Amino acid sequence: MSTETPLLLALDLIGTFAFGLNGALTALRATRLDIFGVVTVGMLTGLGGGVIRDVLLDALPPATFVDWRYLAVAAAGGAIAFVLSPALERFTMPITVADAVGLSVFAVLASYKALGLGFGILQAIIVGTITAVGGGTIRDMSIGQVPVVFRSELYAIPAMIGAGCAALVYSLDYQNIAATLGAAAVCFVIRMIGVRFNLDAPHPPWQR
Amino acid sequence: MSTETPLLLALDLIGTFAFGLNGALTALRATRLDIFGVVTVGMLTGLGGGVIRDVLLDALPPATFVDWRYLAVAAAGGAIAFVLSPALERFTMPITVADAVGLSVFAVLASYKALGLGFGILQAIIVGTITAVGGGTIRDMSIGQVPVVFRSELYAIPAMIGAGCAALVYSLDYQNIAATLGAAAVCFVIRMIGVRFNLDAPHPPWQR
Amino acid sequence: MSTETPLLLALDLIGTFAFGLNGALTALRATRLDIFGVVTVGMLTGLGGGVIRDVLLDALPPATFVDWRYLAVAAAGGAIAFVLSPALERFTMPITVADAVGLSVFAVLASYKALGLGFGILQAIIVGTITAVGGGTIRDMSIGQVPVVFRSELYAIPAMIGAGCAALVYSLDYQNIAATLGAAAVCFVIRMIGVRFNLDAPHPPWQR
Repeated sequence: MSTETPLLLALDLIGTFAFGLNGALTALRATRLDIFGVVTVGMLTGLGGGVIRDVLLDALPPATFVDWRYLAVAAAGGAIAFVLSPALERFTMPITVADAVGLSVFAVLASYKALGLGFGILQAIIVGTITAVGGGTIRDMSIGQVPVVFRSELYAIPAMIGAGCAALVYSLDYQNIAATLGAAAVCFVIRMIGVRFNLDAPHPPWQR
Repeated sequence: MSTETPLLLALDLIGTFAFGLNGALTALRATRLDIFGVVTVGMLTGLGGGVIRDVLLDALPPATFVDWRYLAVAAAGGAIAFVLSPALERFTMPITVADAVGLSVFAVLASYKALGLGFGILQAIIVGTITAVGGGTIRDMSIGQVPVVFRSELYAIPAMIGAGCAALVYSLDYQNIAATLGAAAVCFVIRMIGVRFNLDAPHPPWQR
Repeated sequence: MSTETPLLLALDLIGTFAFGLNGALTALRATRLDIFGVVTVGMLTGLGGGVIRDVLLDALPPATFVDWRYLAVAAAGGAIAFVLSPALERFTMPITVADAVGLSVFAVLASYKALGLGFGILQAIIVGTITAVGGGTIRDMSIGQVPVVFRSELYAIPAMIGAGCAALVYSLDYQNIAATLGAAAVCFVIRMIGVRFNLDAPHPPWQR
């Protein structure tokens, strides 16, 4: 079970596009960028997690760099943000939903990829999480900000749980399309509950 | 056609030196650094683009790390900036010209390298651009600033055009020294026109 | 001579734990982070230098990612900082000492690793230094700050000297446990002298 399934490939590309679009919009809210900056930040957000994944898994060259479709949809997300940024502010919720699709699919497929290459469950969960949140982390670092995922929202924890569910599915040798979508859905639902109720990951107990 | 040609090797080393020097000077204008910081930022600027290139092209260990001459000229650029920074402010234009040589040669040679390793034209252009602007991007990120190349000047676009010209030359199987220098010259001239007329890459249409 | 020796393995894990703990504490002093941010910054600090080392040495997947013990101790350091941060401020000196152990062991073992893989002495010293200071550099970059190691303290220079001593020991084919600990001790002692007397690496001569 990989992105060779048309449905998973489509979800993976939708997620990459959403990351590119959302990453560029987030950067534009924080700082002034020219066209190269906007498109690059979009591509870093959409593709960066996959690059780190393939470095850690010794699977270079990165799959998202070799396949032009990933390059194209991430760049398209950035380019659309460049042209339409203020108009897109009305579509925050659909963009957040598409971003959560990306988060879920990236986490699950990266977890599978790690296990398929012979890595352990711990490594699969870590790689799944990094693939899902790495792009946004690079985005924030590239514009001089503390990554959002390090300080607020419920974003990495759903990815970690989704990657864990995927590792469980894989270990049971049960990675059919339904179980795969189920693992992604666990991540997706937790993420959307976090959005709906404005939940944050726990802060240090000694902070007020 | 690669850096094995003495002329191209010389231009590549001049570019690496110029990046190291200019990177260290730029960092020193923005923040206080000690000798390790100055030399390291110089080396990151001069060598960082090539490291990212070789990660993306699965050509590790990085060529600029294995070959001591690249390490030496990048470090020398940083060390000279450490000692002479204020005095060098009078030489802004020669340094800018040498930096533009580096930009051009890095873009063209990386584009060739990608195509020579079997990657597509799209990947060659992306890698050429990243190799040319990656060092400066890492430099700015390493001192907590939004990369200049993301927000102003005409810097990445000439590199992209130069990498595209190199890809065209390579595809026509015509990469002799004259055509190679021609592709680099296209980048160089556009970059210098941008410097002369203070041109910026386009900003979002909805910004005033 | 590598981390297969129980003593060196223990020192390497102690260093990784200390980097994870100290990195998380440093980040918490600078900015607000949630539990994912604290643990991630701890892991980046403890493991990041080794990842860069293995990229530069073409030794992927990274050893510190494959071996769960490194992942566990780095994460444990971050988790302890998350729970106990204010209480740990009383233990600054033991943490600084353990951090210096990590600095020394990382520098020496990475220098050995480079030479063992056939790289030159210059590359061994650079990789030793990067492995020792890379984690802290990533930590500071990930929270939007200029890396401490670029601007103050005597931190990178002891690592460079320790890596150089290790390269000398290796070149003389004398890397028994005593000589290895001796090379590490050179780094450790210089670092602790720097801490004791508040020494900084030299700043540019033209700064007041």
